[in-house]
Amino acid sequence: MSETTSNNTTTSNTETVKKNPYASHAADFLSNVNNFQLIDSTLREGEQFANAFFDTEKKIEIAKALDDFGVDYIELTSPVASEQSRKDCEAICKLGLKAKILTHIRCHMDDARVAVETGVDGVDVVIGTSKFLRQYSHGKDMNYIAKSAVEVIEFVKSKGIEIRFSSEDSFRSDLVDLLNIYKTVDKIGVNRIGIADTVGCANPRQVYELVRTLRSVVSCDIECHLHNDTGCAIANAYCALEGGAKLIDVCVLGIGERNGITPLGGLMARMIVAAPEYVKSKYKLHKIRDIENLVSEAVEVNIPFNNPITGFCAFTHKAGIHAKAILANPSTYEILDPQDFGMKRYIHFANRLTGWNAIKSRVDQLNLSLTDDQVKEVTAKIKKMGDIRPLNIDDVDSIIKDFHQEVTTPMLRGKALATSPSQSSLKLDSEPPAKKAKTSSD
Amino acid sequence: MSETTSNNTTTSNTETVKKNPYASHAADFLSNVNNFQLIDSTLREGEQFANAFFDTEKKIEIAKALDDFGVDYIELTSPVASEQSRKDCEAICKLGLKAKILTHIRCHMDDARVAVETGVDGVDVVIGTSKFLRQYSHGKDMNYIAKSAVEVIEFVKSKGIEIRFSSEDSFRSDLVDLLNIYKTVDKIGVNRIGIADTVGCANPRQVYELVRTLRSVVSCDIECHLHNDTGCAIANAYCALEGGAKLIDVCVLGIGERNGITPLGGLMARMIVAAPEYVKSKYKLHKIRDIENLVSEAVEVNIPFNNPITGFCAFTHKAGIHAKAILANPSTYEILDPQDFGMKRYIHFANRLTGWNAIKSRVDQLNLSLTDDQVKEVTAKIKKMGDIRPLNIDDVDSIIKDFHQEVTTPMLRGKALATSPSQSSLKLDSEPPAKKAKTSSD
Repeated sequence: MSETTSNNTTTSNTETVKKNPYASHAADFLSNVNNFQLIDSTLREGEQFANAFFDTEKKIEIAKALDDFGVDYIELTSPVASEQSRKDCEAICKLGLKAKILTHIRCHMDDARVAVETGVDGVDVVIGTSKFLRQYSHGKDMNYIAKSAVEVIEFVKSKGIEIRFSSEDSFRSDLVDLLNIYKTVDKIGVNRIGIADTVGCANPRQVYELVRTLRSVVSCDIECHLHNDTGCAIANAYCALEGGAKLIDVCVLGIGERNGITPLGGLMARMIVAAPEYVKSKYKLHKIRDIENLVSEAVEVNIPFNNPITGFCAFTHKAGIHAKAILANPSTYEILDPQDFGMKRYIHFANRLTGWNAIKSRVDQLNLSLTDDQVKEVTAKIKKMGDIRPLNIDDVDSIIKDFHQEVTTPMLRGKALATSPSQSSLKLDSEPPAKKAKTSSD
Repeated sequence: MSETTSNNTTTSNTETVKKNPYASHAADFLSNVNNFQLIDSTLREGEQFANAFFDTEKKIEIAKALDDFGVDYIELTSPVASEQSRKDCEAICKLGLKAKILTHIRCHMDDARVAVETGVDGVDVVIGTSKFLRQYSHGKDMNYIAKSAVEVIEFVKSKGIEIRFSSEDSFRSDLVDLLNIYKTVDKIGVNRIGIADTVGCANPRQVYELVRTLRSVVSCDIECHLHNDTGCAIANAYCALEGGAKLIDVCVLGIGERNGITPLGGLMARMIVAAPEYVKSKYKLHKIRDIENLVSEAVEVNIPFNNPITGFCAFTHKAGIHAKAILANPSTYEILDPQDFGMKRYIHFANRLTGWNAIKSRVDQLNLSLTDDQVKEVTAKIKKMGDIRPLNIDDVDSIIKDFHQEVTTPMLRGKALATSPSQSSLKLDSEPPAKKAKTSSD
């Protein structure tokens, strides 16, 4: 909880983050916050999103973009889902990507036999272990599940292919059942076990506790798949890593069944705060916007206005008090540096909550000269107009220019010119946030 | 971690949730998960959202809607922000709402003197305590902050008005500084202290720890204000309540500076899982959609496609294995009951991931008669077509009807008729999700 100890007032945002005491704690020896991997499931879980239909060409385009970004694994729809699904799986395996290719199947020999012939690097096996799913989905008991699991795992391993065993609906499954089955599959050499919050009911401390418990039971890696029904999928992923999980399932924009799972971009926003060097060295963060645009167009949805990183206002500062401090040092009101993601910062000064510091920087940007008192006076005029109706940048510029003309009579001119040029380097982007808003929300 | 012990296979979703072991634990004596209050800040923090401009009429409409929903407090923009802000504050105070009206000011006597004259029930005071803000915003040290706080608090209390003192950027402030100032203001009788994750850097376990620590230092209530830059605002709010906070700041759709704070709807999704009776008895959950529509229209943004509860696909099930189980018992793949929010469930069956259980229910809905084997056969045809291009419901219905006509020759008719009528009550909504998708994402 201690404050950053840096006394260097010119530290960049990035350096500040690096010294942020809220990176994973040294004492947190279980934590994989600085050493995690991503399994992107846009082409599996994401295909289960209501609007998703990816043809072969689009799948390949998405797979290549994810590979270029740097995800560690790409998970594909089961080859038994449909004939084309099988062909697409084979096609993507042949691309020669750096990322390992996985396919996701039921815990069943029929599926496993097809999966191992596709050319994948690994097979992700899943079976429901909650009483709900055992009763209403497959109707099998835990002994049957263990028996099937062992058979499928040994078969896949015999083909020299990676294998993950996951329970489904893990957070509504009996803990002892879970520990038993995970211990069994760990002993026979499964590569990873998976925990799935299939219905999105889990909360962060609960995820941490379950992962930490499992960490003491198995020696293999732990993967987490977390749905977002109650808005906790990013936080739950973070706590899973803190508890010792190593791999997180993500989808671009989080698309999946219902309202989806942990989003790739959102998780990057979370992780760069905790592990900036690891994240920046491993993933091409400036590609997030392109990948999100690619997928959002393919599934015909807009980027949510409040999306982490790429939402139109993620780096827009409005209230006068915020704008003042941001102009002095962006770290005051930013934990993320927009430049890390190829994004820009905006100061929204055309509104009644604006302050004179924001207006002063606009005056400088217009290359006009006003004293601080004059800027305060014109700010009052702008706030008054902003009380009456929404303002755009042209409105503000007109008010400033009118005011400037008024005060720069020969009598005042000398005084006005005396105060300004040293301020011209203040950061302010001239692209109007309001216009951007329209673009991304129409 | 134990499974729900209910053996009643017909338990409703609600009852299941009630018996869900992931409600707050009896041992969690600090927790306010079952006893929290909401401070809605749509008309303060929300006004700092890039696109927000609320005129008086719209502010009143939003305040009334929030009051009707059941929020405990409504927080308004500082009356010193602009002349109209002050008038609007007075107007809303005169509405006679059940919710208490707050206004949010800097920790300064100039602001406090104006605030207490507006007719508000309470004043929320805030001052930056991180080194960042002390250096780049107000430039004051902790002694000055404490002195100002005491002066403002005693003044507001002398007027018989509730007072909250909050630090700003609490998670980058020195812990000892924080504890000192909170202890000081608690002693002089502040009603609430506030913790603010102003830059959205906090993570869930960190929030829990800070709140729990504070809980042992002060006797007044604790309020949390949590930004969403790294996607954890809902989870952090939940962990704050677990740690002993009592009040959470929310905004409709989470609108606020940058990408905003804890969203009202999303927090309700989280809380109904943990405290269903409390949440359902206190808040009019079926009004969430209307309030979100009201605010999203006012600030000209779309409801995010993946919004908790009201996102167009929040209750849409697609993969065959999910559809099968959902048709047998919705609790298998739903932790939220759409009916609690006046929403509907959709089974998306017009795609290549569909299964024969979903198609069977559609056959029944069309009042046609096919044996299970025939349904499996027509499902294969549908999946084959779904491999070629996106399907809509008309496509599927045509395939089913063609197939039905083919098989119901006189020879087959008797067999087909023998299997169907008992299945006609399966739940399936006929409204096409694909069309909804277009509506909400265009």
